[in-house]
Amino acid sequence: MDIYEAVRERTSIRAYKADPVEEDKLERILDATRLAPSGKNGQPWTFIVVRDEEIRKKLVPACKGQEFVGQAPVVVVACGHEEMAYKKMGGYWNSLPLDIGIAIEHLMLAAVSEGLGTCWIGAFFEEQVREILGVPEGVKIVALTPVGYPAGEKIHRPRKSLDEIIMHEKWED
Amino acid sequence: MDIYEAVRERTSIRAYKADPVEEDKLERILDATRLAPSGKNGQPWTFIVVRDEEIRKKLVPACKGQEFVGQAPVVVVACGHEEMAYKKMGGYWNSLPLDIGIAIEHLMLAAVSEGLGTCWIGAFFEEQVREILGVPEGVKIVALTPVGYPAGEKIHRPRKSLDEIIMHEKWED
Repeated sequence: MDIYEAVRERTSIRAYKADPVEEDKLERILDATRLAPSGKNGQPWTFIVVRDEEIRKKLVPACKGQEFVGQAPVVVVACGHEEMAYKKMGGYWNSLPLDIGIAIEHLMLAAVSEGLGTCWIGAFFEEQVREILGVPEGVKIVALTPVGYPAGEKIHRPRKSLDEIIMHEKWED
Repeated sequence: MDIYEAVRERTSIRAYKADPVEEDKLERILDATRLAPSGKNGQPWTFIVVRDEEIRKKLVPACKGQEFVGQAPVVVVACGHEEMAYKKMGGYWNSLPLDIGIAIEHLMLAAVSEGLGTCWIGAFFEEQVREILGVPEGVKIVALTPVGYPAGEKIHRPRKSLDEIIMHEKWED
């Protein structure tokens, strides 16, 4: 699928069919994730691929009751290693959340091209997810996404216009 | 260009031709940026598009001497508004760096499909960039990228294998 079409078609999918995700599709979208750039090429990430239904169901309350997290046949949990991240992002951040943002967006754009749906999950209780998946202390859990075939209508939320978000040459008052 | 091809072809470009970037191409890649998802659809961003050569040259020392920032005909500076970002990312971050990561990666994948090069710039002195561009205090400067036609050979840095970055069902010891 054309990159622009993937960008236009991607949207947050909050209802999934029970149909399984083919392993070759899953491997391709994970490979697109793998190829993401990161600060100083640190690749400060581990992705946990959860297919087990019992574990997925446990993730629902940890994701503040978002039922579709348990409905999708696969959940990908993006974990981050701060010690592998670039420490001087603009002088005040490390690159970890930005790196993970890039990587999971690769996954999501690739998923669209495979007919699959995803949804950025930022609303979760980190300590609950940590306990369910056995993620060690010191490893950050940055975001999750279900992966599966969309059920129901796709909803595209409105975006600001280019005029609202672009300035030219300098900050405009 | 196919999304997978864009993912494979994108790499950090650190040498640019003087050729200008066509305005229609620039508009398309900025539109792909505009369509990026963000926490609670907050769209907490302003992108400053710098074409002015004098300003671009001033950005070079602010970007720790990365000469190619002044060489490319366009520099895009991603600014972030924390008050518009989702505040409960996993309970400990706001979504700003992650949101900007997604948006600029949209720009970069779209740019590849237009034959253009880009480069994530995280190494910069925020206060110097702020002064050059007149960015108000309270607005974060998250990242920059040059945009232009690549000069010289493209270098793809190695990535970890899938086996190194994927775990199944739970954290594996």
